[in-house]
Amino acid sequence: MAKTQKAAVLTPQGEDFPRWYQDVVARAELADNGPVRGTMVIRPYGYAIWERMVAELDARIKATGARNAYFPLFIPQSYIEREADHVEGFSPELAVVTHGGGKELEEPVVVRPTSETIIDSYFAKWVQSYRELPLLLNQWANVVRWEMRPRVFLRTTEFLWQEGHTVHVSEQDARSYALRILTDVYRDFMVEVMAVPVLAGRKTARERFAGANTSWTCEGMMRDGKALQMGTSHELGQNFARVFDITYLDEAGETQFGWQTSWGVSTRLMGALIMAHGDDGGLRLPPRLAPTQVVVLLVRDEDGAGEAASAVARELADLGLRVELDARTDVSFGRRAVDWELKGVPVRVEIGPRDLAEGKVTLVRRDDGSKSPVPRDELKTQVAAALGAAQAALFAQAQELLASRTVEVGSVDEAREAAQSGFARLPMSVVGDEGETALNQAGVTVRCLLGPEDGLPDPDGRDENLAAVVGRAY
Amino acid sequence: MAKTQKAAVLTPQGEDFPRWYQDVVARAELADNGPVRGTMVIRPYGYAIWERMVAELDARIKATGARNAYFPLFIPQSYIEREADHVEGFSPELAVVTHGGGKELEEPVVVRPTSETIIDSYFAKWVQSYRELPLLLNQWANVVRWEMRPRVFLRTTEFLWQEGHTVHVSEQDARSYALRILTDVYRDFMVEVMAVPVLAGRKTARERFAGANTSWTCEGMMRDGKALQMGTSHELGQNFARVFDITYLDEAGETQFGWQTSWGVSTRLMGALIMAHGDDGGLRLPPRLAPTQVVVLLVRDEDGAGEAASAVARELADLGLRVELDARTDVSFGRRAVDWELKGVPVRVEIGPRDLAEGKVTLVRRDDGSKSPVPRDELKTQVAAALGAAQAALFAQAQELLASRTVEVGSVDEAREAAQSGFARLPMSVVGDEGETALNQAGVTVRCLLGPEDGLPDPDGRDENLAAVVGRAY
Repeated sequence: MAKTQKAAVLTPQGEDFPRWYQDVVARAELADNGPVRGTMVIRPYGYAIWERMVAELDARIKATGARNAYFPLFIPQSYIEREADHVEGFSPELAVVTHGGGKELEEPVVVRPTSETIIDSYFAKWVQSYRELPLLLNQWANVVRWEMRPRVFLRTTEFLWQEGHTVHVSEQDARSYALRILTDVYRDFMVEVMAVPVLAGRKTARERFAGANTSWTCEGMMRDGKALQMGTSHELGQNFARVFDITYLDEAGETQFGWQTSWGVSTRLMGALIMAHGDDGGLRLPPRLAPTQVVVLLVRDEDGAGEAASAVARELADLGLRVELDARTDVSFGRRAVDWELKGVPVRVEIGPRDLAEGKVTLVRRDDGSKSPVPRDELKTQVAAALGAAQAALFAQAQELLASRTVEVGSVDEAREAAQSGFARLPMSVVGDEGETALNQAGVTVRCLLGPEDGLPDPDGRDENLAAVVGRAY
Repeated sequence: MAKTQKAAVLTPQGEDFPRWYQDVVARAELADNGPVRGTMVIRPYGYAIWERMVAELDARIKATGARNAYFPLFIPQSYIEREADHVEGFSPELAVVTHGGGKELEEPVVVRPTSETIIDSYFAKWVQSYRELPLLLNQWANVVRWEMRPRVFLRTTEFLWQEGHTVHVSEQDARSYALRILTDVYRDFMVEVMAVPVLAGRKTARERFAGANTSWTCEGMMRDGKALQMGTSHELGQNFARVFDITYLDEAGETQFGWQTSWGVSTRLMGALIMAHGDDGGLRLPPRLAPTQVVVLLVRDEDGAGEAASAVARELADLGLRVELDARTDVSFGRRAVDWELKGVPVRVEIGPRDLAEGKVTLVRRDDGSKSPVPRDELKTQVAAALGAAQAALFAQAQELLASRTVEVGSVDEAREAAQSGFARLPMSVVGDEGETALNQAGVTVRCLLGPEDGLPDPDGRDENLAAVVGRAY
């Protein structure tokens, strides 16, 4: 069979999903590999998407009362060593600076893999009284974890993220804040903006963050049926508070250790976006996230089509939409159309002299490829409707994929089998510790634990009747 | 003489300016020293100001057509060595990572001190044809330059900045873009938002960036009469293009080297803000930059004053102002007032039961300390007027300082003398190379060269009749 035009641009998903992913990253000009193994260059189009993610997340984070701050990139090695569990989790991943100012340093410094230790050493200084609590801080920063098997956006030696760190007067207060971040910030953003349905649940003991008492997670399903951990929120209990001596005076004047949380999402979300929605034509961006929501594509600059295209672009921008005008008629129409498809721009308005003579333009939706002639004077309404429909359709498709590829099973063996093509769901009591080991040996993990009706498990930790969702993960 | 209340909070500027600076940074909770020498923690209030700076600058940068991207933190040592001039400029300042993933690296990597070398190696790959030019990229990132004499915000081992990097088809195009950044982005932001008058001029050959043909600068005068370089924009000619092989095919199909610029401003602007406007009471923030423009201060929660304060805060926020309500009546009014002064919030609205009974509230301006009773129903108009007046007054004061502390002189000796308390201005032809050496030996530098009527020097480089502005610098 002859290859189609699209197959010539990208490896089809069904043929080789990882290669399709690499192709999309390259062809949509999202990112490039950096010269140091495992690092990446985020190109302008990729970075524009990330900026939109940051803006949407930052607003939600601030709405919970947290404020942004910035802590140093360099952490003395001794800080890292203070928290033993923590070192165990990160040690082989550390990048170490041994030379500065032209000579060897007396104490090597570590490039932050995460900032618990440095932030907590300041919390110890700043926190005095219950009146100042909760202390809710967030940081947007780069972090470094040496990666042996890097993959752009998904696992890179350096990545961009936000990390929240908080101190509370009680376990209960810390827990409800950790859950608020999980649901009102992360899940809300993923569902409403990214149009990715996620399972919000608890990690098993062996999957949780080193140093946390409880880790909560949002797990998404990619179009190859694999799981991607998209964001986590941790209850740290008093573990770090005891190591770093974060204490406060309570109302009765007694010294107490603080209760803490930490939580983060990263440029890994870019990988989730690509793999949750992309198809053989390239990216498909949900309109609420897309840096360009509508591209106005001038077919040929004849008979006033050029002026009409500019006018349409202005009109749509005046509605508050993010619009780009493509009037590069020196490049073939077909090539430009394929390019905008690759880049996943949700709606394309094609304006050419022939249609225009009939008072029409063509509206193309990226999500389903539908093309419809639209009377020029209905365009604004139709574009707005198409954007709304595209956002909903992408979510519905991803939801449908998740439902159709999640299988209820009754045993660990069945779970392992089902996890080859999607998620398996079974009672955690059936999995048990031994079952989890068996799954792990087959490259399968318990992605999260869910409570009744797929809700969050009882946060107080009663483990009866939890469902385990099992899958292969990125 | 007994110390006043303010003197108890901060060292007076007149007594010890550097100590005053440190006091403000600490007491206004802007920043803290990091554990690794020369690094800093930017605290939430300081970071909120920086976020406002970023937003204002980013909008102006994007308005010139530049797009944001992100390049790796780690640069192979060999890249740095490729550009000899560059190495000379930075080598002793480099932080070097020698270990990653638990073992020694085959090639050490450098933590970026600036990104010319890594970005240029990608430009070489991306740039093909004149059609793609100009290529205008910007990056918001942290950079590291090992500092022996660190000072928070002004000279820190790690700092935050934006660095722009561009490629153009001609020297002329690169030059006009470098100047557009200097005036439409940097100077406009400094003057219109920061309310800091700056001298926009050219650096002398010895003051220019290593690797640049021409460096343009915005220099501000701090309240101790010293100069602060607030932002620079460089014409790189084809220097880096030749080293990194950045070529394009011109319209005639000939291979040409690109012409480049680079430009940056950093968290050093925080230092400029503090030192250009701060007084013995603390920060004084220009309203257009202040994260909180108005604080509504409840004096005592009696006779409906609490409700009135909330209502006023809402009303002002509805005008689009950035408003904070301070109803912490468990802390003394005096202490809270001093605190808001320290933080430099431009306008304070004090609401207490006594005034309120007369239908009034008190409006206090931070810039001049003026207090006026204002009828409750005129408050919105008066607050808006006060903010406008405060923005203008801060600029006028800084302008007045710059004018009164700049002295016209006729010789290098006079210039050296005058630079002890401000700027000296004299013809560059009088300074000459020898004069510049003599000045430098006395810790004085030529801050910039100005053209006729203090305008920009002729960019084509004819050096006749240029004025040299000479001062001591941070």
